[in-house]
Amino acid sequence: MNAEIISVGTELLLGEILNTDAQFLATELSKIGVDVYYQTVVGDNRDRLKKALELALSRADVIITSGGLGPTPDDLTKEVIAECMGEELVMHKESLSAMEEYFRKINRQMVESNKKQAMMPEHGKVLVNHNGTAPGVIIEKNGKTVIMLPGPPNELQPMYRESVEPYLKSKSEYMFVSRVLHVAGIGESAVAEKLEKMMESYTNPTVAPYAKTAEVRLRITAKCKTEDEGMKLIEPVEQEIRKILGNHIYGINDDSIVSVVCGLIKKKGGSISAAESCTGGMFASMIVGVPGSSEILNESVVTYADSAKMKYLGVKEETLKQYGAVSEQTAREMAEGICKNTDSLVGVGITGIAGPDGGTEEKPVGLVYIGVCLDGKTSVTKLLLAGDRAKIREAACLHAFNAVRLELEK
Amino acid sequence: MNAEIISVGTELLLGEILNTDAQFLATELSKIGVDVYYQTVVGDNRDRLKKALELALSRADVIITSGGLGPTPDDLTKEVIAECMGEELVMHKESLSAMEEYFRKINRQMVESNKKQAMMPEHGKVLVNHNGTAPGVIIEKNGKTVIMLPGPPNELQPMYRESVEPYLKSKSEYMFVSRVLHVAGIGESAVAEKLEKMMESYTNPTVAPYAKTAEVRLRITAKCKTEDEGMKLIEPVEQEIRKILGNHIYGINDDSIVSVVCGLIKKKGGSISAAESCTGGMFASMIVGVPGSSEILNESVVTYADSAKMKYLGVKEETLKQYGAVSEQTAREMAEGICKNTDSLVGVGITGIAGPDGGTEEKPVGLVYIGVCLDGKTSVTKLLLAGDRAKIREAACLHAFNAVRLELEK
Repeated sequence: MNAEIISVGTELLLGEILNTDAQFLATELSKIGVDVYYQTVVGDNRDRLKKALELALSRADVIITSGGLGPTPDDLTKEVIAECMGEELVMHKESLSAMEEYFRKINRQMVESNKKQAMMPEHGKVLVNHNGTAPGVIIEKNGKTVIMLPGPPNELQPMYRESVEPYLKSKSEYMFVSRVLHVAGIGESAVAEKLEKMMESYTNPTVAPYAKTAEVRLRITAKCKTEDEGMKLIEPVEQEIRKILGNHIYGINDDSIVSVVCGLIKKKGGSISAAESCTGGMFASMIVGVPGSSEILNESVVTYADSAKMKYLGVKEETLKQYGAVSEQTAREMAEGICKNTDSLVGVGITGIAGPDGGTEEKPVGLVYIGVCLDGKTSVTKLLLAGDRAKIREAACLHAFNAVRLELEK
Repeated sequence: MNAEIISVGTELLLGEILNTDAQFLATELSKIGVDVYYQTVVGDNRDRLKKALELALSRADVIITSGGLGPTPDDLTKEVIAECMGEELVMHKESLSAMEEYFRKINRQMVESNKKQAMMPEHGKVLVNHNGTAPGVIIEKNGKTVIMLPGPPNELQPMYRESVEPYLKSKSEYMFVSRVLHVAGIGESAVAEKLEKMMESYTNPTVAPYAKTAEVRLRITAKCKTEDEGMKLIEPVEQEIRKILGNHIYGINDDSIVSVVCGLIKKKGGSISAAESCTGGMFASMIVGVPGSSEILNESVVTYADSAKMKYLGVKEETLKQYGAVSEQTAREMAEGICKNTDSLVGVGITGIAGPDGGTEEKPVGLVYIGVCLDGKTSVTKLLLAGDRAKIREAACLHAFNAVRLELEK
């Protein structure tokens, strides 16, 4: 069974809102094994909506629309779909009284135009909307199914879970189970090359990479009848990948490099502090972004100026003079200084050139040194990062977390 | 001139990522008067991509694609489009050497598969990618234009601004000139109420608000033949709005509350330091995100634990005991402490409850106090912010910058 998602609304074509409905529906459909080959966005325009629908009917088994079920004249979805499928719109009494009840509840006057929302295709299955005035509809005709959902996510999502998912599950014979592996310290092309055979020849499960800032994600997806069967298919492929990529793999599914590092530090029962130059507090902020991080972070400093590096970290003036603020030596002294002065398990020093200016032949924009001090030992990683200032700073932080992870896992 | 956006990537069909590229392109195209009637999302599949492209060519003047320009075998956009438009792919030497240079810069081995990214349609206009390995392309043929852009937003957006926008502007007969006013310290509905008449009745220029985190943006857009004509239409409306909103308006166009505050501090010739609790370094990081911020920020501290608030800022133990870490008094002592200890022009203290846990009846999640110390005077702002942990922390920072601005503008 394959489905097509049609998102209706001129505000989408103008970029006024993000199409989160399409992402929600796509995610949910893939979970239950419904293939989606196309998503279409079309405005509140009768002809173009009709064309999009006719095209979808010609190539998909199930069409799911979002939006255009409102009370205003430019809400056309139901009218156009009814027309295309040869359905009359008739007043649906339960929907009308439910709507009247809804308006009583929020104690607002129901206007005449709302009644339009209770007009339903004569053979349609009406889906109750507990969070708004527009009911949804399912029409089955000529071997095709069209499902109309309201646009607001807080109405569409519960309606999907309550009415649409059970309906589709009852129709589809298999499901998809997938596992995401998070890979750091190696680029997408290199990963693709190492796993080329799998990516090209494996069909169930499939292996697909996608690049994120400072990491690559590998999705292993199995087509199966049960969760168990899926995991049994995924397991050996995951092991094969782990053999190839080793400790480049830092986590699975919803893990992030930040949450993984926070977890490792909690396990060790210590704290982490950073001395940040070019990242300017972003590293500490990422830790504080994880709920409960007060257990592992008490304090952290932004030492942007040389004076601050000496004041807070005891970086030696000679070091700054001889090697410069962006150097292995300075990164080392920053990490050791913050670790000592905050009595932390892990001390991190980050110094680099984020650009756009300040680069030289010998120290280009993107040059970053990361010092990690743990158990009195300090390692320094040298990075050459690409991108704009924001990208370089974010990548520097994420690489720093990976450097901390590698030390903690030793 | 009308355009169609085709987003290429199975990860979009699976709902793994949000289609922010389509929103960005739709927003930018509407700004320059290019109509978009359809957006299509299609996976990394040769046949379906070909079908989507052929359909778009049949109904749009300009087709803009995003994604599928990567080095892996499932990156097919360029190949399929070249085929549909009868173009040979030939090695583009400049792109190849740019790519080799790029890999030298990031100190990574360029693998064979990357070379595929330098293969270009023989009659294509190549668009340089300063932030990644995949160049973009413009092909003009048989009265149609196809523009291929890389998928990653940090590559697509600068490439659009640098190469695509000027190209499209040169093709369309009339232009849109717009000016954005940035409004802080007042909510969207309040702004909408104050400007209701304008927003409803003005047709050229139009006035449209949109809400962003901790600010509202007002776009004044004129349809015109020349930049000058546009500005003449915009000028009086802007003055009218400024009369109504006064110093809620902090900047225009590309200004951000951060860049505006950095500018004000540079003018005064001083520095700023922060003592951050719930924001955990995000405030300082936002300043360091502005190029050249080393002039105004030397040091800043993350004082997450009470002990750190006493150690770095001299916050009194009684204050913490009596009023708590999240209180007007603590925010005041944090601001004064950091200002004094760093000898800064402006000292900022931020303390709050970002959630999801830690809220109480009397101190709920979203409660944030911001202290601003300037010229020995300290003001404290109390906020009640909505949203999740990330949203509350970001909003707290942005409100803090606005509080600093209001003090500096006094």
